[in-house]
Amino acid sequence: MDGSGKIERVKVPALDEILGVPFKVLNDGFIRLIDYMGSDESIVQAARVSYGKGTKKVHQDRGLIRYLMRHRHTTPFEMCEIKLHVRVPMDCWRQWIRHRTASVNEYSTRYSEAIDSAQLTDDDQWREQSRGNRQGSTGFLDGEVGSELSEREAALIRDSRRLYRERLEAGVAREQARKDLPLSTYTEAYWKIDLHNLLHFLALRMDAHAQWEIRSYATVIGEQILSRWCPMTWEAFQDYRFHSTALSRREQQIIRMLAAGRPEDARRLAGEFGFLNYDGPRLKPNRERKELEEKLQSLNFKIPWLDGR
Amino acid sequence: MDGSGKIERVKVPALDEILGVPFKVLNDGFIRLIDYMGSDESIVQAARVSYGKGTKKVHQDRGLIRYLMRHRHTTPFEMCEIKLHVRVPMDCWRQWIRHRTASVNEYSTRYSEAIDSAQLTDDDQWREQSRGNRQGSTGFLDGEVGSELSEREAALIRDSRRLYRERLEAGVAREQARKDLPLSTYTEAYWKIDLHNLLHFLALRMDAHAQWEIRSYATVIGEQILSRWCPMTWEAFQDYRFHSTALSRREQQIIRMLAAGRPEDARRLAGEFGFLNYDGPRLKPNRERKELEEKLQSLNFKIPWLDGR
Amino acid sequence: MDGSGKIERVKVPALDEILGVPFKVLNDGFIRLIDYMGSDESIVQAARVSYGKGTKKVHQDRGLIRYLMRHRHTTPFEMCEIKLHVRVPMDCWRQWIRHRTASVNEYSTRYSEAIDSAQLTDDDQWREQSRGNRQGSTGFLDGEVGSELSEREAALIRDSRRLYRERLEAGVAREQARKDLPLSTYTEAYWKIDLHNLLHFLALRMDAHAQWEIRSYATVIGEQILSRWCPMTWEAFQDYRFHSTALSRREQQIIRMLAAGRPEDARRLAGEFGFLNYDGPRLKPNRERKELEEKLQSLNFKIPWLDGR
Amino acid sequence: MDGSGKIERVKVPALDEILGVPFKVLNDGFIRLIDYMGSDESIVQAARVSYGKGTKKVHQDRGLIRYLMRHRHTTPFEMCEIKLHVRVPMDCWRQWIRHRTASVNEYSTRYSEAIDSAQLTDDDQWREQSRGNRQGSTGFLDGEVGSELSEREAALIRDSRRLYRERLEAGVAREQARKDLPLSTYTEAYWKIDLHNLLHFLALRMDAHAQWEIRSYATVIGEQILSRWCPMTWEAFQDYRFHSTALSRREQQIIRMLAAGRPEDARRLAGEFGFLNYDGPRLKPNRERKELEEKLQSLNFKIPWLDGR
Repeated sequence: MDGSGKIERVKVPALDEILGVPFKVLNDGFIRLIDYMGSDESIVQAARVSYGKGTKKVHQDRGLIRYLMRHRHTTPFEMCEIKLHVRVPMDCWRQWIRHRTASVNEYSTRYSEAIDSAQLTDDDQWREQSRGNRQGSTGFLDGEVGSELSEREAALIRDSRRLYRERLEAGVAREQARKDLPLSTYTEAYWKIDLHNLLHFLALRMDAHAQWEIRSYATVIGEQILSRWCPMTWEAFQDYRFHSTALSRREQQIIRMLAAGRPEDARRLAGEFGFLNYDGPRLKPNRERKELEEKLQSLNFKIPWLDGR
Repeated sequence: MDGSGKIERVKVPALDEILGVPFKVLNDGFIRLIDYMGSDESIVQAARVSYGKGTKKVHQDRGLIRYLMRHRHTTPFEMCEIKLHVRVPMDCWRQWIRHRTASVNEYSTRYSEAIDSAQLTDDDQWREQSRGNRQGSTGFLDGEVGSELSEREAALIRDSRRLYRERLEAGVAREQARKDLPLSTYTEAYWKIDLHNLLHFLALRMDAHAQWEIRSYATVIGEQILSRWCPMTWEAFQDYRFHSTALSRREQQIIRMLAAGRPEDARRLAGEFGFLNYDGPRLKPNRERKELEEKLQSLNFKIPWLDGR
Repeated sequence: MDGSGKIERVKVPALDEILGVPFKVLNDGFIRLIDYMGSDESIVQAARVSYGKGTKKVHQDRGLIRYLMRHRHTTPFEMCEIKLHVRVPMDCWRQWIRHRTASVNEYSTRYSEAIDSAQLTDDDQWREQSRGNRQGSTGFLDGEVGSELSEREAALIRDSRRLYRERLEAGVAREQARKDLPLSTYTEAYWKIDLHNLLHFLALRMDAHAQWEIRSYATVIGEQILSRWCPMTWEAFQDYRFHSTALSRREQQIIRMLAAGRPEDARRLAGEFGFLNYDGPRLKPNRERKELEEKLQSLNFKIPWLDGR
Repeated sequence: MDGSGKIERVKVPALDEILGVPFKVLNDGFIRLIDYMGSDESIVQAARVSYGKGTKKVHQDRGLIRYLMRHRHTTPFEMCEIKLHVRVPMDCWRQWIRHRTASVNEYSTRYSEAIDSAQLTDDDQWREQSRGNRQGSTGFLDGEVGSELSEREAALIRDSRRLYRERLEAGVAREQARKDLPLSTYTEAYWKIDLHNLLHFLALRMDAHAQWEIRSYATVIGEQILSRWCPMTWEAFQDYRFHSTALSRREQQIIRMLAAGRPEDARRLAGEFGFLNYDGPRLKPNRERKELEEKLQSLNFKIPWLDGR
């Protein structure tokens, strides 16, 4: 390591161009980039401190970043930092704030009047409760029902706001007047996080199982901001993390049999693992088997305990 | 340090007696102790690891705990841990959850229907906006106004709940149906935190500037639970932290003059520090001077720039 | 959730039996269990708070823990906590302490004399530098060389200790006298961590790539302590985490071709991904291809770009 | 809050000038600034998000920063971040790394050969063990003794390094060869931390009780780097934190009596608090009384239980 000499601050021109510009999300939300520290280059630089003089030029930058991502060497990614200004419905913010590794300054409705805006739902945006997944939604209600729901929603939000204003006019303290605002009310915050923890946030919140609202925000952060900031990291994240799949010890054992052309042994193993319990002629539901079947299908394997596939 | 020998698990009988018993807070909230690790004795034990063999019996336990608290030696307090089951309005929970050093499992309104209960306000509990403190309240509105506000509140909460139920019946996903629930809706959580971070929570949330709702919860935790769990720590916390006061460099300089019987020099210093700017004959408001005046009065000093006190 | 009624504290009898008993590690190190909070049952309890009333008995405990582990639902595992008393060479402790999510009280060599013990190496325990892995070792040096090295080691440690004592006798402050103690000197600490973060520690430090010393400690924690404390979690950890393997997006694409019986397409893809660069007739080294080859072999696939397998 | 419009990145020209330039510390250590995010202005900006529109221009920047510091409103200070490249003896690094809220990439002596440099002690730099403070030093040993100690130190460091090299030449793995290096061996790291946590580090490590070595580093960070980066914060930190003093509940009670001209009552209170236990005619040592006496003297009070002052 060279301990001498003046250096220039790391800049990412593609990111400087969007500093402060709001990306719209939902009906009245946004994300704005406020500041950043570091770049793909800074990750490499930090990783090379660990490696000392020995590795100069041994790895190319891109290869090194991909290696770090693949092997979950996470500390060099902590060397980058980003600060966003976001406007988000409180309901969505409740999920967001569960990520404890960020720094936050949120708009205070003790100090100032609540932001006069709420997340409104369009007629065709009412999502149906999923049956298979207790905490998910699937498809949309039809427009007529939706239209009625949207109208009723608008009325409730109006009523809540009117009551809020009446309380303030009656002299009620802001900290108490706000108590019945709907969760759909927008809040704003400065949110600062390092890249390692941002990737964790994105892995969970860009995921298909994340709620649509927070997924919308996460996707903007990933596709519009991170992709410009650290393009090599963004690419490696998608290959090795976001689109990767994990095989458990048992799943590996079953695939080993299938790859060796021994479907009967694979079936036998599945039985031993308790995946194939029958209720008469029908397989009983088993969540772990279902997940395995999805992986096998995605990998082009024939599932040995299912006929006619 | 003695590395040998079987030990018994640390127990606090006074705490075992209240395990699981709900302490009521607000109209329908509670705090229940679920589990704990350690005691005053464990703090001492951990501190003595640092000190090695050299210190056995040098300090008595109580003296050592008081020393650690006074000098902000915080790591031994991390050796104790507590787990609570709480029921809290979401608005209050929004403040609570800002303490990032705790572990949390919250009731999921994606997975299950929202708890059918909200924080209702009694007629005589509507607090007035403080004028001096933008983020505080002071006193109560009169009962007639309050009665009207409480009625209107109950109606809004009823309407919100009815709409929530209608959405669920129409098949809207729970994750979306909840979006306009009022912030006063109760949630529940398991909340686990170590003693050092709990003391920080209590210092901020038992404080007179904390909002009444969260102060009510914090006070129960301190007075009902911590006082039984670690009585020496609780006592030291009150003496050296909760009821302590800090003097800035400038405040010390001014007190030095007052203690030496030189009020004119104290006044001169206050002027040099920019505390005494006049608007004609009247002192201009200055927040730092005001805080100093409160400290001087509390310490029985005559304030040299105020006549007739 | 039932908010009423007294409960008993969670106990794990199998763990109570080993409280305080030292497990020996290395020549003079140990691990002793000091205290714990929670059990497999507490993980389930916390997870069910999230799920509300809806799920009682829907999942059996073991199934739920396995589900949580498989899907990286980590917060319920934070609800368990463990406290250990460890004696570790400082060199090993330097790695250990990099896990920032634990609470620590370490023996202070400012306050007390350094522990008079160092990690000595047996004649046949000198490990050879790995060639393939710059940060690993492989096999042992032969006994004659080792014997010489061990003798020289013992002499250096003796000299260092003698000098340390001489400094103390000359009146040098402990904080300075210690400055040239060898890294092999033992230290002691109380170390407290929650189960989620402990699993992360074990995943990294029980791994074959971890240095032998810290692996020895991690293995004792896993096999001797965690296996008694939370046996369901320990089992699930091994299946879904410790012995799991991850397939990147590209690796999945290649396996898809192999499973469909199209090795030529698999080979073509590998080429497109830049895995198959030739230096004349020989494949150039490529770390990502090498890792893929190991996975394919372990899964019983024939590697399409290698002949004669 | 204005959600529109492109912004420029925050720059601190005074800091840009020293980017990369090493500040020397100890005989062969250094601190180099690598990057930073934010400035005094960013703290103000984040604080104002909390306050909403209501406060524009109400506070001046400097006043707001002083207010935040005085009242320990810490989150806005988290909005600034700094990254340093440091070279530090391992013994000192052992203390440094206990601050868990930073991001770190350290030079790896598994991967590369250990840095060939150690902290050497000049003849006149051997510090004497303090008698009053078990973990401190006071004054220096005389030069003749020091000269002998320095010679012996140099020899030990030479021997250790020679043995290290012999091990490497014999083929011992780097991860094991390093095991007996002296704690005085230099290591290097990239260290990144937010301003709030940096202030906490400086408050502890610039303190007179901190060990001289780490104090030397902390002082450079404070006086050379922070003072240029966030001059308003640096000033406020010194006034309200570094040079502030805390009065416990009891200390306030005693000062109240002294300020009211009632020394006898102050003395009586001290007795009630257990500060004045006598062993015949002499006061028994009592640490809390001693700390109070120091505060009283510093504030120009006559100590009522000591005659002849």
